[in-house]
Amino acid sequence: MKSTLEMIRSHPHEPICDSEKLAAVIAAIKICAQACTSCADACLGEKKVESLVGCIRHNLDCADICNATAAVISRMTKPSREVLQSIVQSCATACNLCATECEKHAEMHEHCRICGAACRSCEKECLNIMELIR
Amino acid sequence: MKSTLEMIRSHPHEPICDSEKLAAVIAAIKICAQACTSCADACLGEKKVESLVGCIRHNLDCADICNATAAVISRMTKPSREVLQSIVQSCATACNLCATECEKHAEMHEHCRICGAACRSCEKECLNIMELIR
Amino acid sequence: MKSTLEMIRSHPHEPICDSEKLAAVIAAIKICAQACTSCADACLGEKKVESLVGCIRHNLDCADICNATAAVISRMTKPSREVLQSIVQSCATACNLCATECEKHAEMHEHCRICGAACRSCEKECLNIMELIR
Amino acid sequence: MKSTLEMIRSHPHEPICDSEKLAAVIAAIKICAQACTSCADACLGEKKVESLVGCIRHNLDCADICNATAAVISRMTKPSREVLQSIVQSCATACNLCATECEKHAEMHEHCRICGAACRSCEKECLNIMELIR
Repeated sequence: MKSTLEMIRSHPHEPICDSEKLAAVIAAIKICAQACTSCADACLGEKKVESLVGCIRHNLDCADICNATAAVISRMTKPSREVLQSIVQSCATACNLCATECEKHAEMHEHCRICGAACRSCEKECLNIMELIR
Repeated sequence: MKSTLEMIRSHPHEPICDSEKLAAVIAAIKICAQACTSCADACLGEKKVESLVGCIRHNLDCADICNATAAVISRMTKPSREVLQSIVQSCATACNLCATECEKHAEMHEHCRICGAACRSCEKECLNIMELIR
Repeated sequence: MKSTLEMIRSHPHEPICDSEKLAAVIAAIKICAQACTSCADACLGEKKVESLVGCIRHNLDCADICNATAAVISRMTKPSREVLQSIVQSCATACNLCATECEKHAEMHEHCRICGAACRSCEKECLNIMELIR
Repeated sequence: MKSTLEMIRSHPHEPICDSEKLAAVIAAIKICAQACTSCADACLGEKKVESLVGCIRHNLDCADICNATAAVISRMTKPSREVLQSIVQSCATACNLCATECEKHAEMHEHCRICGAACRSCEKECLNIMELIR
């Protein structure tokens, strides 16, 4: 999403951290949200759905938290560091736990492998950005 | 929303805490999300919108975080205490800061007064439930 | 949610239709969204989850569409009748189809019965409001 | 988001239309949602925010409807053509009207120009996909 960076650069205010780093964390969160929504649905479509109930639960929570975090961190007008720190920390926590669950099914289900990797990448970006917005 | 309590009682699994307390926190979060969405829009419609920019920003963030939190806390299948604690804490933080901003405009704008009260009530319920789900 | 009506009345602009009717449709949509999120989760927690896959799918879609519709219809500043008509129609469609699915499981699962009723009520309110906002 | 296509290909069920076309429409909707969230915030941060109130309103509605549509169209398990048709039509409508508003400010504000283009692209993809999922 190169338009994310263009939107940051055309904003009347300065970002809370380096523009490219901000665009990278937004991209990672959006990719993770999308992977989680798809993984929940793919798990639901598997024959042995009963073995994937915990994965679906983590996917749904992680998607909801990622979507909220992406919206909050995309806003640059009058940001609150306290809200940002708190929701980005929640996002990292949700991603970590969702990744741990997805990784258990990664050998069996390619969608869980892709989703687990997206969650790990998002967790890492969230932890990085927390250092920058302190 | 009496149906929230009925849904909790008809769920195949036990809630993470007392059913009535869980229904109360969900109700407070949903009321807060709705008040924040409406307050952002009412502020946007005020003649002196430029004096309410910070309030709109807090309202939008608080609505997004409340909506994610309501979804996560409403799910009772295979809950993760770590995710719950983290998102409910974020919700309390967002509500506290949004309330503080709304309260500044409460004498001038009734919608800010109502929204500030909804945020305070939601913050209190979130802090209460955190004790119970530890 | 009596605060929904108070928020409508404290808004600087007039609602697109009668305030009480607007508050009623917002309430019905929010109750439906909450019921659908809970029913998806309750179905996921049932032993025979594989027989409820279609219900979970409808619940998730209906919750997403209801949440978007509730936000759009709650905004009173510079409303677009065309967007409102279109999203309220989508909401009625999603509610009708979700209700039809939930009703199949209503005798077996109380959560499907409650959710089906919430969807029917929301569908009815959406169809009513469409007459008023034409 | 190449992972969107990978997720579609690793899903246990067939997509409702060609995988690459489905991935393209999902990408366009996600880009539009992100642009609208950012444009609402950038408009809010402009000195002459009072001249951008209508644009913010359209941005917020369009972001909400795009987010719901992206979630619904990403699900491939037991899809309902009727729900899909209806929400994708709403999405095209919201994008068209948001684009029309953004385009009025495109010369003055680069963020409105980018957002208007994202809305037009999303509208076009939505209209294309409606032909395919009939």
